[in-house]
Amino acid sequence: MRSQMLIFSKKALLPAIKILSHGSFPKFAGQFAIQKAYASLLTPTIRQVLANPPKLESEGTARGHIKAIRTFKNVGFIDLSDGSIHETLSVTINNPEDTLRDNRYKVGQSVEIRGKWIESRGSQPFELSYDPENPTHNISIIGDVLENYPIQKKRLTLQFLRTVPTLRHRTSLLASVLRFRAHVEGVLADFFRENDVVKVAPPLITSSDCEGAGEQFQIRPTNEIQSMSEKSSYPSEKNGAKDADLGFFGKDAYMTVSTQLHLEILALSLNRVWTLTPCFRAEDSNTNRHLSEFWMLEAELCYVTEVHQLTDFVEAMVRDLVGNLQLESTVLTSGSEHDLLGARFSKQDREKIAQTWNQIMGEDKWPSITYTEAIEILNRVKNKGRLKGRLAWGDLILTEDEKWLAGVHYNSPVFITDYPKSQKPFYMLQNEADNTQVSEETDRATVACFDLIVPEIGELVGGSLREHNHEKLVSEMQHRGMLTEAMQWYLSTRENGSVPHGGFGMGFERLLAYLAAVDNIRDISAFPRAPNVCAC
Amino acid sequence: MRSQMLIFSKKALLPAIKILSHGSFPKFAGQFAIQKAYASLLTPTIRQVLANPPKLESEGTARGHIKAIRTFKNVGFIDLSDGSIHETLSVTINNPEDTLRDNRYKVGQSVEIRGKWIESRGSQPFELSYDPENPTHNISIIGDVLENYPIQKKRLTLQFLRTVPTLRHRTSLLASVLRFRAHVEGVLADFFRENDVVKVAPPLITSSDCEGAGEQFQIRPTNEIQSMSEKSSYPSEKNGAKDADLGFFGKDAYMTVSTQLHLEILALSLNRVWTLTPCFRAEDSNTNRHLSEFWMLEAELCYVTEVHQLTDFVEAMVRDLVGNLQLESTVLTSGSEHDLLGARFSKQDREKIAQTWNQIMGEDKWPSITYTEAIEILNRVKNKGRLKGRLAWGDLILTEDEKWLAGVHYNSPVFITDYPKSQKPFYMLQNEADNTQVSEETDRATVACFDLIVPEIGELVGGSLREHNHEKLVSEMQHRGMLTEAMQWYLSTRENGSVPHGGFGMGFERLLAYLAAVDNIRDISAFPRAPNVCAC
Repeated sequence: MRSQMLIFSKKALLPAIKILSHGSFPKFAGQFAIQKAYASLLTPTIRQVLANPPKLESEGTARGHIKAIRTFKNVGFIDLSDGSIHETLSVTINNPEDTLRDNRYKVGQSVEIRGKWIESRGSQPFELSYDPENPTHNISIIGDVLENYPIQKKRLTLQFLRTVPTLRHRTSLLASVLRFRAHVEGVLADFFRENDVVKVAPPLITSSDCEGAGEQFQIRPTNEIQSMSEKSSYPSEKNGAKDADLGFFGKDAYMTVSTQLHLEILALSLNRVWTLTPCFRAEDSNTNRHLSEFWMLEAELCYVTEVHQLTDFVEAMVRDLVGNLQLESTVLTSGSEHDLLGARFSKQDREKIAQTWNQIMGEDKWPSITYTEAIEILNRVKNKGRLKGRLAWGDLILTEDEKWLAGVHYNSPVFITDYPKSQKPFYMLQNEADNTQVSEETDRATVACFDLIVPEIGELVGGSLREHNHEKLVSEMQHRGMLTEAMQWYLSTRENGSVPHGGFGMGFERLLAYLAAVDNIRDISAFPRAPNVCAC
Repeated sequence: MRSQMLIFSKKALLPAIKILSHGSFPKFAGQFAIQKAYASLLTPTIRQVLANPPKLESEGTARGHIKAIRTFKNVGFIDLSDGSIHETLSVTINNPEDTLRDNRYKVGQSVEIRGKWIESRGSQPFELSYDPENPTHNISIIGDVLENYPIQKKRLTLQFLRTVPTLRHRTSLLASVLRFRAHVEGVLADFFRENDVVKVAPPLITSSDCEGAGEQFQIRPTNEIQSMSEKSSYPSEKNGAKDADLGFFGKDAYMTVSTQLHLEILALSLNRVWTLTPCFRAEDSNTNRHLSEFWMLEAELCYVTEVHQLTDFVEAMVRDLVGNLQLESTVLTSGSEHDLLGARFSKQDREKIAQTWNQIMGEDKWPSITYTEAIEILNRVKNKGRLKGRLAWGDLILTEDEKWLAGVHYNSPVFITDYPKSQKPFYMLQNEADNTQVSEETDRATVACFDLIVPEIGELVGGSLREHNHEKLVSEMQHRGMLTEAMQWYLSTRENGSVPHGGFGMGFERLLAYLAAVDNIRDISAFPRAPNVCAC
């Protein structure tokens, strides 16, 4: 059995690390211990095998799921995949009639094959050769498949794959989407680290409601819920120590819809913070861009006084990411390390991805228009001045119009800033100049906010400056009929060393769908959650 | 106003990136655009200022919260902190009587000070000098504090700080804990990436119960919960489209207690996966090492057939991490970049931290004993053969005994393997040899599992090989009286290309508490959640 060394982070060069990475034990009990450590290291992934070619003519073992079986007169092929890379490892079977008879081996089975590494006749530099005459060679079925195993070589639709949620990630496309997700998260983490933005972990259980909306999930221990549905009045708890009406936390508790309010507290302590966490929305919407549980990347930055500091930051973040992806793709198309999107998609999909990335990386800065300008452009250009469908100042910009602005009018991601205050949450900073700009309407108050709109998706990022003045924030909450008492913890930050700040949130699955040209974010999420969708 | 460039990830070297990082716009509308971009970049953090010393004798602006004010005859000092680094930025005030009179400036206020960078008389290479006579110099209070602002220079207990949850992270100790957390996560992410383990995002909303325990939070949309507590029978929903009794997801839904089962599915697709997500336990326990919401690092690795492959992996992971921390600490004690733990802790705490790290990095591999050996050692050594308190095979090993084994007996982290099957969940792989080893008792079945026990904490990591044989797994579930129907999705992985695999879970706050020698994990979690604890 071939053993594999664990690889330690580049920075770690300390002596003690030798213990495990080199199989040598400085002060250890000799041969026995060394052998023990040797035997217990992990077997290599196919990606590692491909990246570190084994010695030709030596014996070796390959492990994976059978992806395809092909039989010719004198030779057969079994392609193995273990999901660590999109490429398969080829095993050639000498005199295959006997070995491959009776459909003994099937697509989807996990197998372990012992054979000899030889030079490949195919595109790979080497392959494993199995010779049924050689007594040390062997093929074992580790895990069989049911007769109806659905992940066959034929092209499967994403819709169909959603019906087999425990197996669909064995397709090379959806496996590559998962690996892509991990890669994107890593690049973004580097970007934030290098810009001195600290990753933090705000709570997902919250006693307050970020947006002022009611579409939240409430949580209760299972036994409390059971008691509630059995009796009309809320019963007392078994241990009697708590006021049962108040529940486990002593108050109503919800799953967060956005971590922003807590991030603001942490930003006022650490200057710049970001997070990537699940958020939860109990909206009854079944679309290709909504999930009940989705991951959101959120950031809050102190000493920010203009919306364009935020839009520049967001543009830099996305450009840095896509610049990385392009660089990796260029490097990788020629090597076996390639593990981004390219190889798994159809030619058409790959062209679409390339086009999206090129559009993002255009030489000009992305356009930035105000809400007022957006309404004007939509009326003048999209509606060509017709009265029918004309938008009035204060109307919502629909997703369809957002897609038109980015995909047709600008052919670029585009920022829309300074939306009407009435459309936005209480915590956004009101633009001061607004009251002097009133024309037709009496109140055209806007807030210092932005949405990033991208083709085919619509809103990808939303952010704003936050009202940091205590008096103004309280007044705005009262104006909206909000209870300030429950939000006292949030308001207290404005009474103690408040600082101008702003931030944004980006739906992570939407970002990935956009960059990978995947239509439905249920194919980005490993186990999507939506109304009536909670398969496993 | 001093501007600051965004720093792009090292890998991104593409032309388009020049746009934002160098303030130059290749095809842009000239000077106006450049100035606009210039003005909108972020102001530097104190960490960045200290790392990139400004030109002496030039004017500059410093921003932060006032950490301390000291007045002498001819000079005063204001120390500023913005939480980006533990070090403060010193501002000297010439002829301070007038400037600092009437307690105009107070600890906790956020201020912006314009002055001149000069060589420092203190430990730092430079400081900002404010001269009240100079008309371009200025001090503005950005955010005032209330009279009772609690974060004063005096030493505050962690217990007291928990009572001011929105302000406690402004203390240098708790801010450093947050930065440490981000650093540790980054090092671990590197380790997994370099060992070909893919980061994935399993769902937190689940319809099943990982451990077979009932201590979960159940979730319902807020409006459903309200209806439940108002009426005795569960009412129908307003949109009528769903079977209301089944709720939003068409079935009962819970917050996950462990993502393991979903990780197993993803491991069987990608070979090696890990995640770091919140998990939720509705246990009514108020201890210094339990939270209702905590982050758990979990990994599942395919083609693992021995428990010691897992323990070696875990030891390598923790050693790699601590090796990094030691290296950084050594490098950093001599420079201003230091941003790990050292500087913020008392001398006593620092010694304790150093001792913990040295113990982890000992030259010998960590001891690994079986459960049976642990019971024997506890009876023989800890209990010195006395009958009172003698443990029988099958008894739980209490936290107190775990701490004794690691902290006193071995003076090292220690693995305990092969626990009684009856103490562990259904999915663990049963050890085959057990039935031949029966001595006194009739059934000493054990499972191929391990706990990592560390001094002062007890259990830090728990893991096992997973039963990958369909028949045996079903049989075990039936034996335990579990409903296999609801777990069909999980069982299906054992019917389709099953692979020997194993994994582990590590409480992330516990790891940090251990490494930072913090007694209570409520001081590791930014906003801890526990019974009756959900402050904001």
